[in-house]
Amino acid sequence: MKLTILIHCADGVGIISAVTNFLHVKGGNIIYLDQHVDLETGVFFMRLESEFQTDISLKNLKKGFQNDLASPYQMKWSMHMAGIRLKMALFVSKYNHCLYDLLSRYNSGELNVEIPFIISNHKDLEYIADQFAIPFHCIAVTKTTKDKAEKEQLKLLKEKAVDFIVLARYMQIISPDLISVYPNKIINIHHSFLPAFAGARPYHAAYERGVKIIGATSHYVTEELDAGPIIDQDVTTVSHSHSIQDFITKGRDLEKIVLSRAVKLHLERKTMVYNNKTVIFT
Amino acid sequence: MKLTILIHCADGVGIISAVTNFLHVKGGNIIYLDQHVDLETGVFFMRLESEFQTDISLKNLKKGFQNDLASPYQMKWSMHMAGIRLKMALFVSKYNHCLYDLLSRYNSGELNVEIPFIISNHKDLEYIADQFAIPFHCIAVTKTTKDKAEKEQLKLLKEKAVDFIVLARYMQIISPDLISVYPNKIINIHHSFLPAFAGARPYHAAYERGVKIIGATSHYVTEELDAGPIIDQDVTTVSHSHSIQDFITKGRDLEKIVLSRAVKLHLERKTMVYNNKTVIFT
Amino acid sequence: MKLTILIHCADGVGIISAVTNFLHVKGGNIIYLDQHVDLETGVFFMRLESEFQTDISLKNLKKGFQNDLASPYQMKWSMHMAGIRLKMALFVSKYNHCLYDLLSRYNSGELNVEIPFIISNHKDLEYIADQFAIPFHCIAVTKTTKDKAEKEQLKLLKEKAVDFIVLARYMQIISPDLISVYPNKIINIHHSFLPAFAGARPYHAAYERGVKIIGATSHYVTEELDAGPIIDQDVTTVSHSHSIQDFITKGRDLEKIVLSRAVKLHLERKTMVYNNKTVIFT
Amino acid sequence: MKLTILIHCADGVGIISAVTNFLHVKGGNIIYLDQHVDLETGVFFMRLESEFQTDISLKNLKKGFQNDLASPYQMKWSMHMAGIRLKMALFVSKYNHCLYDLLSRYNSGELNVEIPFIISNHKDLEYIADQFAIPFHCIAVTKTTKDKAEKEQLKLLKEKAVDFIVLARYMQIISPDLISVYPNKIINIHHSFLPAFAGARPYHAAYERGVKIIGATSHYVTEELDAGPIIDQDVTTVSHSHSIQDFITKGRDLEKIVLSRAVKLHLERKTMVYNNKTVIFT
Repeated sequence: MKLTILIHCADGVGIISAVTNFLHVKGGNIIYLDQHVDLETGVFFMRLESEFQTDISLKNLKKGFQNDLASPYQMKWSMHMAGIRLKMALFVSKYNHCLYDLLSRYNSGELNVEIPFIISNHKDLEYIADQFAIPFHCIAVTKTTKDKAEKEQLKLLKEKAVDFIVLARYMQIISPDLISVYPNKIINIHHSFLPAFAGARPYHAAYERGVKIIGATSHYVTEELDAGPIIDQDVTTVSHSHSIQDFITKGRDLEKIVLSRAVKLHLERKTMVYNNKTVIFT
Repeated sequence: MKLTILIHCADGVGIISAVTNFLHVKGGNIIYLDQHVDLETGVFFMRLESEFQTDISLKNLKKGFQNDLASPYQMKWSMHMAGIRLKMALFVSKYNHCLYDLLSRYNSGELNVEIPFIISNHKDLEYIADQFAIPFHCIAVTKTTKDKAEKEQLKLLKEKAVDFIVLARYMQIISPDLISVYPNKIINIHHSFLPAFAGARPYHAAYERGVKIIGATSHYVTEELDAGPIIDQDVTTVSHSHSIQDFITKGRDLEKIVLSRAVKLHLERKTMVYNNKTVIFT
Repeated sequence: MKLTILIHCADGVGIISAVTNFLHVKGGNIIYLDQHVDLETGVFFMRLESEFQTDISLKNLKKGFQNDLASPYQMKWSMHMAGIRLKMALFVSKYNHCLYDLLSRYNSGELNVEIPFIISNHKDLEYIADQFAIPFHCIAVTKTTKDKAEKEQLKLLKEKAVDFIVLARYMQIISPDLISVYPNKIINIHHSFLPAFAGARPYHAAYERGVKIIGATSHYVTEELDAGPIIDQDVTTVSHSHSIQDFITKGRDLEKIVLSRAVKLHLERKTMVYNNKTVIFT
Repeated sequence: MKLTILIHCADGVGIISAVTNFLHVKGGNIIYLDQHVDLETGVFFMRLESEFQTDISLKNLKKGFQNDLASPYQMKWSMHMAGIRLKMALFVSKYNHCLYDLLSRYNSGELNVEIPFIISNHKDLEYIADQFAIPFHCIAVTKTTKDKAEKEQLKLLKEKAVDFIVLARYMQIISPDLISVYPNKIINIHHSFLPAFAGARPYHAAYERGVKIIGATSHYVTEELDAGPIIDQDVTTVSHSHSIQDFITKGRDLEKIVLSRAVKLHLERKTMVYNNKTVIFT
């Protein structure tokens, strides 16, 4: 049995020693350990991977962890068995590049995930869902139907026990209600190097400003638009000779890469969120 | 004789043909030609390098150019003889990395430029000026002395017939008066990927936002702070494990590179400015 | 009518002027011009895009070009009408990421190309061809059947009048016979930053050497393995913490990007080959 | 007191727990821990930083470490007190950019190091040593004097108890004798992305091959030329429009950055060498 353990708590003396000792005594071999201390806030973060040769009770292990470590150190923690496939819902609109990219990776086994369905506010990409034999739900979103649409979305998400949501260029603002059900579990791709060019039409704004570099940013969705914890960013160079359409075309490749990297980091439980920032274990 | 010619005008039919034909007839061989049309504004930009084997009169050439080309096509243009060294004034404050970098390049012959003097509002870097045997003028700048200080600066700039100014982390806002004397001839380095984190303490702001990429931007100074035409940008990756001090240290290397590239582009007359953006010929 | 014109010839005085003048007289407006002189070999390269408002005879234009320009300057040249879709054959083996990537781009209209068929020496990727409704020919290649296989390939290529071939991780060496039919028209993706790690298993070799950067290279296929003219390269960082499998996974994203960029440059006729190197007009 | 501890040994169960427990019991707070297991060779690497509030005896701590940990686990290890400045000798030839860069960083306090002297086989850069007030020894190296020259170098290195050597574009091959005195303690900068273009004139070779990316590599010097463990690499893009001289100029900036990063990693004891590869803790 292989476990991934995520911990954060107030920094203090002896935490690493206590945790590694606990695991050692329980028969766990630590095959990965990384830690980080945020010096400003004095918060300690740790990610461990531990292998247990003998069959042990996960329930007992968790109980022991809570009593021996989490309570005394006031830790927030989670423990995840390897090999369990998370359920990922995809929200899309009319752009197909991120959808194609994620589904190709899914089909080739690069993403160890289940995709119970794709939700869109338009029919345009249904043919891709069909190509990959994934259920497609078209739920129109207008000002007046937004509430109803989101309820329908939530119903589907619950029915399939979806673990996290990926907005693969969904182009709609997610309401606080839905965000509160999936805190730090909704991944968005924004087509600029945030915080520059938040909001609509970032390639147009970048072109207007005459930047020499454009970027893309994957982040967890929070109530404030395009202001959630950044998971990953990447950039590419542009010049005066590129039109807005060139920006868009070049940007698409960034968006695909940056979104898929965020999805993988999330799947491998390599992300922790604190103070609207991420700790990314690599 | 080698000439560099920069032209911009309203786009139209036959301009390239007219210009290249003019030069051919005058005995000039075109060794480099690059052009760009800004489709939004319909403006045509061209940069040529032309070699003249025979001794011709530059004065006559310019006159012919004005009559035969510039007037009919309503061009704005300039013609520059190769080999003339421009005079560059350096403005610094307390940070030494950009100054060291530029002076090292200057000393090794990488920058074909004259540096008549260095101006600073502090004495801290005088020792570097001494190391490189360059006159150093300390002109203190406070709220009350700002006007006086700038007059003193202007006097020095005029005395030495300075062609352009490089703010190598000068940390002071340049007044409109000085800018108007050197339009698109004052190069600043800002320590962020503009337009993100304009203004003071960009590394602190970047740290606070939790970005995964930091950058630096060289640009021409305009009246609006950090909003002038961008000449060059570059970025480097950061992670949660980097402190603000790490951002600053990593950023220094970006600043040096991005500023020196801008200086070289300016020296080689590879920059043109239009609509608060640059055309960079490479 | 929009034309792209590619020219190379011995460098000399007045070529640009002659060409631009010729086009101007014929009623063509030059909307793009880029040129390059290889100083070592004294070869001049030029790429132009020219728009003709009036209906002119392409045949007459070509005849005039040959007589007035190409003959006197001993140019090698080609003239291409915009909007004509080239026919691209895809050769694949068992890896699906480049195939998926190219077909997604094709399906979204990013690649203005026809794909008459996919050839593979294995059945593994037939399902993707089916997904995208593209004919799939499985032609097994063994030592003994290699000749026969290639004849079969050539037959298909001729039947469909294929313009160029893309080896999307085909994993087989192309014979000189086939190469001679498609000179500088077979694009390969090699999974290293050539010339490092040519040949088989480059990620393993890179891992063994302990490099901190891995790359991918797209190039035209010549008789010498992995030694043809390089079209594009890109790299990504790796560390000691990455396994060979990590190299492979990270490399896949490079391969996709670098191959698709090469395909686009080829389609847009932005590549010229000389002395086993490319001139890439951007 | 702050200590950095480096450990490597055969991988096994309980090592992290044993080490962290040992430090905890001795009163050390672990402020940084990173580990790596090379799965191919089964070797475990660890780097820790530990703070001891109370005054403890480093001698006793080391003794305890050896008895309680190093002996049972058959560790190779080292323990370093923070704040001790290493002595770095610089070897240069005629190129000044890396020397200028390192000395600027040294002068600004970015490199926490002593530089007892600069050795060169030419007088060309003596003026820079003078600028920075660092002793300069010119030791000519010819085929016949090579042995004698190296003895002279060794004498100087011993006199000043030099800890490690940086070849800042030294352009001479270091003999096995000198290497054996400084194993994994001589840092070289090679001006290509190794293993491509090892040996002389890499920029010329890169130009000849028509690559689209050039690089620089810092590595520890071993007997085989340009084949030692790679510490850091970086790259920049080039195109057909760049001459060999452009490659050299662009490459200089890479060389400076990549060499200084290696020097810093070495100073901060963030490098470990195994199997001709490096583990770089960041």
